Amino acid sequence: MAEISTLGEFGLIDRMTKELPIYNKETRVGVGDDCAILDYSTLTDDEQLVTTDLLMEGVHFDLTYMPLMHLGYKAAQVNFSDIYAMGGMPRQITVSLAISKRFSVEDIDQLYTGIRLACEKHQVDIVGGDTTSSVTGLAISITCIGTIGRGQAIRRNGAKETDLICVSGDLGAAYMGLQLLEREKYVFNETNEQPDFAGREYLLERQLRPEARRDIILRLRELGIRPTAMMDISDGLSSELKHICRQSGVGCRIYEERLPLDYQTAVMAEELNMNVTTCALNGGEDYELLFTVPIADHEKVEQMDGVRLIGHITKPELGLALITRDGTEFELQAQGWQAFEEKK
Amino acid sequence: MAEISTLGEFGLIDRMTKELPIYNKETRVGVGDDCAILDYSTLTDDEQLVTTDLLMEGVHFDLTYMPLMHLGYKAAQVNFSDIYAMGGMPRQITVSLAISKRFSVEDIDQLYTGIRLACEKHQVDIVGGDTTSSVTGLAISITCIGTIGRGQAIRRNGAKETDLICVSGDLGAAYMGLQLLEREKYVFNETNEQPDFAGREYLLERQLRPEARRDIILRLRELGIRPTAMMDISDGLSSELKHICRQSGVGCRIYEERLPLDYQTAVMAEELNMNVTTCALNGGEDYELLFTVPIADHEKVEQMDGVRLIGHITKPELGLALITRDGTEFELQAQGWQAFEEKK
Repeated sequence: MAEISTLGEFGLIDRMTKELPIYNKETRVGVGDDCAILDYSTLTDDEQLVTTDLLMEGVHFDLTYMPLMHLGYKAAQVNFSDIYAMGGMPRQITVSLAISKRFSVEDIDQLYTGIRLACEKHQVDIVGGDTTSSVTGLAISITCIGTIGRGQAIRRNGAKETDLICVSGDLGAAYMGLQLLEREKYVFNETNEQPDFAGREYLLERQLRPEARRDIILRLRELGIRPTAMMDISDGLSSELKHICRQSGVGCRIYEERLPLDYQTAVMAEELNMNVTTCALNGGEDYELLFTVPIADHEKVEQMDGVRLIGHITKPELGLALITRDGTEFELQAQGWQAFEEKK
Repeated sequence: MAEISTLGEFGLIDRMTKELPIYNKETRVGVGDDCAILDYSTLTDDEQLVTTDLLMEGVHFDLTYMPLMHLGYKAAQVNFSDIYAMGGMPRQITVSLAISKRFSVEDIDQLYTGIRLACEKHQVDIVGGDTTSSVTGLAISITCIGTIGRGQAIRRNGAKETDLICVSGDLGAAYMGLQLLEREKYVFNETNEQPDFAGREYLLERQLRPEARRDIILRLRELGIRPTAMMDISDGLSSELKHICRQSGVGCRIYEERLPLDYQTAVMAEELNMNVTTCALNGGEDYELLFTVPIADHEKVEQMDGVRLIGHITKPELGLALITRDGTEFELQAQGWQAFEEKK
């Protein structure tokens, strides 16, 4: 393993950015100068979307069980997810890394390989960044620029009474994956016993290798569905629903029996003695899309594979409620859920 | 002092982003959704520039002597400086912060006040960001988008033989400011003696409150001067000259007697028993502009206040050299300078 100091900052940057592919025509100059040069004025019908995320070791990831390649992949995907959450397409990213001495050149290769892989899948150009040292852990900051047709961006504030609430994929699995990894880390530390993840692969994949839902955006366009509000689910369904309802000035009803759950999520919750509905509502890191559509689009939405209708938008006076299987109404902002969020 | 946990992540974001001014018409939607929305297609003659910086506590700044307001101001300015270094104008930034528990709400207010002040001065919109916790120190990641006329960006690779090499402002003062602060911190720790900075204010200002050279870019435009290559001086004159010469495939001669030095820089170097030329060449953090112009622009450049002609571009075979006051030629890549750089 080579120490990073053998390459130096500029050597490391050269190594990471060698032969970076360029997928998008508006990327004129990528890495290698004070700035990247983009030409968005050629895309005359588009606006630009900008989003950014900062991931800190010990807060957002634990390298004991997070392979660096997966970390790079995930760091890029969470940014793409924010662009898709407005209905847009990601086009460029900048990648900044703060690296402590305990990382080797090969470690950074791994991290960068994951980032490049995600970019290849989503046709995104790496156009710049910053590489620096850190006295403690690893920090990764990615900024993503995307495009969206002018006036077409789907905001959080457009949900209307009677709109249907939809969710892609399933919920809570990434959180269950995290719980599983944390448990096995604890067991390993105490007993030196190797973890056995057989039958739990889906949970690990959801935690370690999320995939931003480009496919859902493309499908919505194909079907001519324009959501009235949309967000990606990074902090948990409850939290995102609160944002949409607050910014749209509406209330909502969602139904426990409609929440999309994977079988492994349910089994794992049972095993950990946790309420699976709570996990689905507050787990976080699902990177699925939460969106609302006019009731007229009901049939079109029903055609979409992997999209579940979970409830509807109401008058603001009705608040935010979950209807349980036995018909009981729970306020989504109830203390129980909040306490859970803080424990996370 | 209020703890950040009393506000929570969203409360803190609301507080920081309250009544953010928007200076630029292409900024359609700023903070508050998954992404900011920009409309650059309306600026039909422009391209976009993108740059990013990640600042880590303990590496880039020491909060023992760096007030948080200054830190915020500087963090924004270093990004603006990269945009000016291509000849462009900064327009939008995103600001990501990772904050540990030892910071109060008021601390973050201070930091953000500095960022907003820099943005006001340079007419830049804060359009997004990410706020998260950190288990260790403070991390600040800023990404800046700017504009430049199509095809007008000044790269590092355009310097030609016989071009004149110019530098704005003066060099080495920021580094002397850092040395002074480090010394006084040491003295204070050992003896509890309060530092006395009388007569050294300029050095402190250069270290703590750098100002990106928008004025130089505007003046170059006024005079119709188009540099053939340009960079900002963040890592030191030697390092930046090496980038320009390598990417342009040329050599250079610069003259020790031409290096712009402030009186306080010279006095401080003397006091610290350091070679002032070495400080000017390798000090870093000056955030001045280094640029080359065709020899035909000689007279125009001479008209510019605060710009000094320090040498000229040569054939590549001649290498990179400093001509000392007594006429001796030193290779800029000589071991001596490199060793110095590593000590930094």
